[in-house]
Amino acid sequence: MKVLNARVEALLTTENPENFVTSRVPQIDLMYEGIPGDRHFGYTKLSNGRERMYPRGTEIRNRRQVSILSQEECDEAARRLGIKTIKPEWLGANMVISGFPSLSQLPSGSRILFPSGASLYCEGENFPCIYPGQIIQSYYEDIPKLPQRFVKEAYGLRGIVCSVEREGEIRPDSTIDIYVNLEWQGRNWVEGGTGCEVQ
Amino acid sequence: MKVLNARVEALLTTENPENFVTSRVPQIDLMYEGIPGDRHFGYTKLSNGRERMYPRGTEIRNRRQVSILSQEECDEAARRLGIKTIKPEWLGANMVISGFPSLSQLPSGSRILFPSGASLYCEGENFPCIYPGQIIQSYYEDIPKLPQRFVKEAYGLRGIVCSVEREGEIRPDSTIDIYVNLEWQGRNWVEGGTGCEVQ
Repeated sequence: MKVLNARVEALLTTENPENFVTSRVPQIDLMYEGIPGDRHFGYTKLSNGRERMYPRGTEIRNRRQVSILSQEECDEAARRLGIKTIKPEWLGANMVISGFPSLSQLPSGSRILFPSGASLYCEGENFPCIYPGQIIQSYYEDIPKLPQRFVKEAYGLRGIVCSVEREGEIRPDSTIDIYVNLEWQGRNWVEGGTGCEVQ
Repeated sequence: MKVLNARVEALLTTENPENFVTSRVPQIDLMYEGIPGDRHFGYTKLSNGRERMYPRGTEIRNRRQVSILSQEECDEAARRLGIKTIKPEWLGANMVISGFPSLSQLPSGSRILFPSGASLYCEGENFPCIYPGQIIQSYYEDIPKLPQRFVKEAYGLRGIVCSVEREGEIRPDSTIDIYVNLEWQGRNWVEGGTGCEVQ
């Protein structure tokens, strides 16, 4: 694994689990179920269109406990949409980091370690859906079709989702260690075969 | 995702959690904690040399609940060692499948779905350690240095470890659907950069 650093700029949780939008908090105590009180808290969740191998609404293990945005990617998405800013609150993010401009490409299986020892496990890229775009639209009423454009323009810039690998306290203004999982490096799945091979 | 099929040949659990060796069972009821009664059952486990980002013995989420072997890979490992057979019991396996000769290369994030709807999530390749080699040695006393040779010769043939994504019953002699995670296909991490890029 390769280790890189980044900085926690903000932590956020949903004040009301019914509501997608998050609010800034000074500290989070990560549990194996996720962020206490947050919309995505739980060992399990109900499957949706992101897990198409299951009938919609199937109870499965929850891998989307914590969502993380890169400040640099957020700025780039705002630039592409021609708006001044996209607030992480509007996207329902739980964390914003800086100094890691390709967060959305971080491979599954990478780890993010905090000064307390708490740790998140990267479960893969997040993908834009239409709800955050509707919230962005409400702040920029003069700009047309932001919900639809957000889904397209924010693709590859929407950050990652994580599960908790080790419990503990996390705070803003701290430095994190990102252990990049390179297991797939140099591998290539062989289409049409019955397995894959290392090239 | 690409979907392939394979066949469950055997299911096994540890009779005594103190003992590494597994025994065949006619059915397993998968729980989110893993296989009831098995050595690797639990939401959490203590970290070891496989998770070097944590001090040894740190409580972390358990991703090694279920270990799976490919019959074809087992046969190849036996051939390389010059012995007649390697029994999955000796390796502490929980499942043996056939018809999937490159199981050890299955990318993390792939899913294995059973007829009941139960599902396992691939957490990555297993790596040979010296204990199974010592057990193999006890069955082939005339062949020198099997523990050390097993670690080397079985590398890349040791199968995968999984966690339970959906609870349910699993049985031998059933067909499984393997949803191969291809998210990393065509990507390449940029060494020395602050992120990675899609090529």
